[in-house]
Amino acid sequence: MAPHLNAIITRTNLNSLLVVGPGHGAPAILACLWLENSLATFWPKYTRDRQGLSALIRGFSVPGGFPSHINAETPGSIHEGGELGYALSVSFGAVMDKPDLVVCCVVGDGEAESGPTATAWHAYKYIDPAESGAVLPIVHVNGFKISERTIYGCMDDKELTALFVGYGYQPRFVEELNDIDQDLASSMQWALDEIHKIQKAARSGNPIVKPRWPVLILRTPKGWSTIKSLHGEYIEGSFRSHQVPLPEAKNDPEERKMLQAWLESYKPSEVLPNGEPSEEVLSIIPKEDKLKLGQKKEAYAAYEPIDVPAWIDHGVKKGTQESCMKVVGKFLNLVTHSNPTSFRIFSPDELVSNKLDAVLEDADSGRNFQWDPASRAKGGRVIEILSEHTCQGMLQGYTLTGRTGLFPSYEAFLGIVHTMMVQYSKFVKMAHETTWRQPVGSLNYLETSTWARQEHNGFSHQNPAFIGAVLDLKPSLARVYLPPDANCFLSTVAHCLRAKDYVNLMVGSKQPTPVWLSPEEADRHCIAGASIWKFASTDDGLEPDVVLVGIGVEVTFEVIAAAALLRKLVPQLRVRVVNVTDLMILGPQGSHPHALEDTDWDALFTGDGESDGKGRRYIHFNYHGYPVELKGLLFGRQGLERVTIEGYREEGTTTTALDMMLQNHTSRYHVAAAAIRGGAKVNKKVEVDAHEMISYVMHLAQKDREYIYANGADPEGTFDVPKFD
Amino acid sequence: MAPHLNAIITRTNLNSLLVVGPGHGAPAILACLWLENSLATFWPKYTRDRQGLSALIRGFSVPGGFPSHINAETPGSIHEGGELGYALSVSFGAVMDKPDLVVCCVVGDGEAESGPTATAWHAYKYIDPAESGAVLPIVHVNGFKISERTIYGCMDDKELTALFVGYGYQPRFVEELNDIDQDLASSMQWALDEIHKIQKAARSGNPIVKPRWPVLILRTPKGWSTIKSLHGEYIEGSFRSHQVPLPEAKNDPEERKMLQAWLESYKPSEVLPNGEPSEEVLSIIPKEDKLKLGQKKEAYAAYEPIDVPAWIDHGVKKGTQESCMKVVGKFLNLVTHSNPTSFRIFSPDELVSNKLDAVLEDADSGRNFQWDPASRAKGGRVIEILSEHTCQGMLQGYTLTGRTGLFPSYEAFLGIVHTMMVQYSKFVKMAHETTWRQPVGSLNYLETSTWARQEHNGFSHQNPAFIGAVLDLKPSLARVYLPPDANCFLSTVAHCLRAKDYVNLMVGSKQPTPVWLSPEEADRHCIAGASIWKFASTDDGLEPDVVLVGIGVEVTFEVIAAAALLRKLVPQLRVRVVNVTDLMILGPQGSHPHALEDTDWDALFTGDGESDGKGRRYIHFNYHGYPVELKGLLFGRQGLERVTIEGYREEGTTTTALDMMLQNHTSRYHVAAAAIRGGAKVNKKVEVDAHEMISYVMHLAQKDREYIYANGADPEGTFDVPKFD
Repeated sequence: MAPHLNAIITRTNLNSLLVVGPGHGAPAILACLWLENSLATFWPKYTRDRQGLSALIRGFSVPGGFPSHINAETPGSIHEGGELGYALSVSFGAVMDKPDLVVCCVVGDGEAESGPTATAWHAYKYIDPAESGAVLPIVHVNGFKISERTIYGCMDDKELTALFVGYGYQPRFVEELNDIDQDLASSMQWALDEIHKIQKAARSGNPIVKPRWPVLILRTPKGWSTIKSLHGEYIEGSFRSHQVPLPEAKNDPEERKMLQAWLESYKPSEVLPNGEPSEEVLSIIPKEDKLKLGQKKEAYAAYEPIDVPAWIDHGVKKGTQESCMKVVGKFLNLVTHSNPTSFRIFSPDELVSNKLDAVLEDADSGRNFQWDPASRAKGGRVIEILSEHTCQGMLQGYTLTGRTGLFPSYEAFLGIVHTMMVQYSKFVKMAHETTWRQPVGSLNYLETSTWARQEHNGFSHQNPAFIGAVLDLKPSLARVYLPPDANCFLSTVAHCLRAKDYVNLMVGSKQPTPVWLSPEEADRHCIAGASIWKFASTDDGLEPDVVLVGIGVEVTFEVIAAAALLRKLVPQLRVRVVNVTDLMILGPQGSHPHALEDTDWDALFTGDGESDGKGRRYIHFNYHGYPVELKGLLFGRQGLERVTIEGYREEGTTTTALDMMLQNHTSRYHVAAAAIRGGAKVNKKVEVDAHEMISYVMHLAQKDREYIYANGADPEGTFDVPKFD
Repeated sequence: MAPHLNAIITRTNLNSLLVVGPGHGAPAILACLWLENSLATFWPKYTRDRQGLSALIRGFSVPGGFPSHINAETPGSIHEGGELGYALSVSFGAVMDKPDLVVCCVVGDGEAESGPTATAWHAYKYIDPAESGAVLPIVHVNGFKISERTIYGCMDDKELTALFVGYGYQPRFVEELNDIDQDLASSMQWALDEIHKIQKAARSGNPIVKPRWPVLILRTPKGWSTIKSLHGEYIEGSFRSHQVPLPEAKNDPEERKMLQAWLESYKPSEVLPNGEPSEEVLSIIPKEDKLKLGQKKEAYAAYEPIDVPAWIDHGVKKGTQESCMKVVGKFLNLVTHSNPTSFRIFSPDELVSNKLDAVLEDADSGRNFQWDPASRAKGGRVIEILSEHTCQGMLQGYTLTGRTGLFPSYEAFLGIVHTMMVQYSKFVKMAHETTWRQPVGSLNYLETSTWARQEHNGFSHQNPAFIGAVLDLKPSLARVYLPPDANCFLSTVAHCLRAKDYVNLMVGSKQPTPVWLSPEEADRHCIAGASIWKFASTDDGLEPDVVLVGIGVEVTFEVIAAAALLRKLVPQLRVRVVNVTDLMILGPQGSHPHALEDTDWDALFTGDGESDGKGRRYIHFNYHGYPVELKGLLFGRQGLERVTIEGYREEGTTTTALDMMLQNHTSRYHVAAAAIRGGAKVNKKVEVDAHEMISYVMHLAQKDREYIYANGADPEGTFDVPKFD
């Protein structure tokens, strides 16, 4: 594909990138990159001569060389090879808002069986040919996966034609094995002509309704041109040509001879005289570096920060009740207006449900869905396709080519793209390790409709596991925020949209909840990552017996409600209330760039009592995620015996907000009981009637539970802001 | 759909289940289940009278009632509603090896946008009509998701026809809004006739090549028959009919009046006189309970344990080198023969690559892929489709209807189905909480081609995060095994295939590795979950200074290599070597059914030194997964300050086995250094030259690293079995 694309670029100055889907796709691409001298541009040892060629071949797939799957070390790439299924959606993301770009995307027939690819064919329905470029998909049907036949390989041309016409394409088969080069060249030119027709119509104000984009279906035998057979078994045209067709070539002279003959069939002395490409080969390589597939700025140096308005001007009033998402939605509307061609939102149809619909208010910040006449061609910045995989792929392609995106999602369903996010992070990690890849915007996730509020959806919608997915990443990439109110959420969103090279996960509530902090206070709180909330603490939070820590919106409310309850019931207990908005401050010193120094950690949460001689103080974390994550994160901090943790323990159904807290032991009552239990161990005055107090508190919990099940609702006033007098 | 299906069942005694894909699909089904008196069978309060009806309606989607998505509490269901996209593949799994079963599967047009559904349409290509039943898919196109238009909703009949013909179906549209009942009834009958034609041909020895299975496409407006408009905005036929079309009906008399009129339009007094179904309604309900959709044994009481051969007879010789997967593959071949219609393997085309290909040796244990003439209709027990989602869906459907399956996968890519596995676990958890759902087989995962051996695939293939996914589950379900050798793996597979109601994750190596334990020793080791490996320990592992723990194949080898090295370099250090094969023994006492009692934990890993007065001893874990998981798991055990942990730290590429260990600090040298560091703190004789020894060990590491990068291979003898004399 690459040489043909090169020929076209050389002839027409086409602005193009190549995205390669099939597994082990690196060798062909590396060869082309070496031929066009792009390897040497970024990796000096791979010069375009005999020595460089030798280094390339000898280094391939061994320590210190290029791996067999395309990764960030491959010049021109914007897609981690390996986990199959995402090449297509990434390509679509890349062409958005780049009207002249054509991404040529090779899809393997193995990869085509994956769900993410199977639905990504519809992605063209979200591409406005007036504002965006185009994807030229080439489906390579060679009939086999690793060892089983492929589905496409067992479908005849009529079946495939029907399928792709159904997807909205005009397919053309490339299968003239006697002259595949001519067939492919003319087919690619035909496809580009079709693309330009569609684009021209749209750009001249006469868009074609439901344009039929071209797709090429290339049928060649698996391992075409390798050896025909070995030990009486077919190799070419069979799964046995996968990866290493001659496994014993190193030791078996017979196999080595076959290898020699096979490689010589490519006539290296003609095409690579003296180990350098012949004039004929060079003739199809673009003259200008900036046109070469391996040197496109779009692939490695295209990032321009977006213009993020000062959030503080859009903060909300402390003491009110606001939906974080409503407030953020309005702010995002501004962001879309400030960045009309460099910011997009991808979501599985959840903006309205997640109360972010302010983004959709204007036509030009609204949705973009070409198949729907109502939203067609209006420059909308939002794509809502009910495929998390497609959203993620588009977000990746858009981000890696220099722009900034946002992926809002129900909390429970973001895990659908867990491994995609990991693959992307691997790409970014390796990009960091090169000398030449420039930064990109962050991958921004906004999780809401969390487990804590699933009155109408229930158990299936309760899964905060994506936090753990981000915690597994390299610390240099991983960022997790749980802003406790609307101002903190604004601050966090504004920060993340400006940040580079991270995976930012923001988790919050869509329901109206108290605005605890003024914009200025929220700004300070978010910079610190955590702070003592004196208004809810006893004695200004000084010299506490216990520290109660809220991490997350609803669980922080419960901590504050617990503090209010304790002040009334156990006034002798000295309570400090802490909120953590940046999860990454918690790990042991040095484990993460945000991890607090020990002294700062101790200042917030108290020391372990040995070093400061103050004796043990108890810390109870009321955490939004799975407790096991937080336990893993805290491991290595001193004095963990005094730490207790509650979080989502996989209990729930369609029930009230308070009942969710009760079922998961994160309710005010559970927090209060934990505080008394800890306090009793360090404060004699608390110890006296601790047992009785705990019973009383749990009795209150039981009463509330009974009320909820009798009335189908939480008791009146449950979520009134607690008063501290 | 359900009433029409009931009518057919009543008429023809069809053996059928209904699987409902669309979100919030519960109300319609619950109504039908109440009508057929299946609700009362399992939930006595929902009697088929006015009182039961009132309880059903008042309880819906509030605490104590049915949730709005279908779950395990819904009689007859085999699929957790909520996360969209899996209804279709689950249905296909359910009909396998049940030749008379027809699963009617409703797919929403929102769900249809998801990747998992988009590829699951191909699943029919893996259904042999001679041995399995059939799925009758009904695509319900109502045009909207939560708020955005759907893709299918914006495709015309021609586009959808092409698409489904391409997928291999004959589609029939059901869209006669003036008489939808007649249209749907005759269309369903047509579809069943087509299904029976295909089955009859196959079962009489004349199978149709590439049979065209029927699919129905039902087009009705979203929220059909609800109120037309509210406050000047369309409701019926618009996204506003999603969930709650009259949100203020409780407080606004106007809305309440509209609600009343809407509900009365269904003529409750005619169809439910006195709150009980009329004769006419009852006439289409199957007379026999066993035919009712809500009382099918297949859905709640069909499990029969499979026949698992005694693994110990197939154990391998201690002291040899064996690939766990080769050995397990042979054993699985036996399992397929012992269970010709109740055991299946689903894999994304990785059996050969994962060295499990012994399963494929015979035609009748081989693959089953109807579109491939070579494998068609041979009763193969293996389906290899390159869609983890489809594999998982099929496995779920097969398992929940009483059979047993296995999902072998590359380690890195099992995370693709993370959230599916969680949804399934939620179903099983709720099933446990009912009084009437019987056990099912376990969901069995076999992970290999792990991060530790990716010489040819590299970084993209390195991701052990699925362990963490299982750790987040309820402890009653979660099981994670990392058998250290082939005999332990055999024992583990045999156990898992017999176990009920768990999610079993087995992680191991496909490369030849030492057989450390005889079959009998392996049996004891696996029952215990962990044990001291005296052969590698100093002084029989008594009174150690440090405990070195291996969890996983390759990291355990490194521990043993470290022990050998230490015996030579630091003979004064007393080392105990422990292997953990059952990860769940580690958590604090009481946290998991397998968690060791404190005394047993201490016996294995040594006490914290305070209680037994022996002083602190150090424990170093060399763990296969992400360290943060193990940290979370251990939290709560006493004396964690003496614990250090290394594991996969997200470093790697295409490199050698030893280099992977070096890069991730799990190498023998890192283990030895950790041991010396710990030992120096408790053993004066070690302290003396500890610093020097650590430098020396790390110097050895550096030398190996240099060798690897100079030679592209590990030094000769790196993986020879260490000698202990």
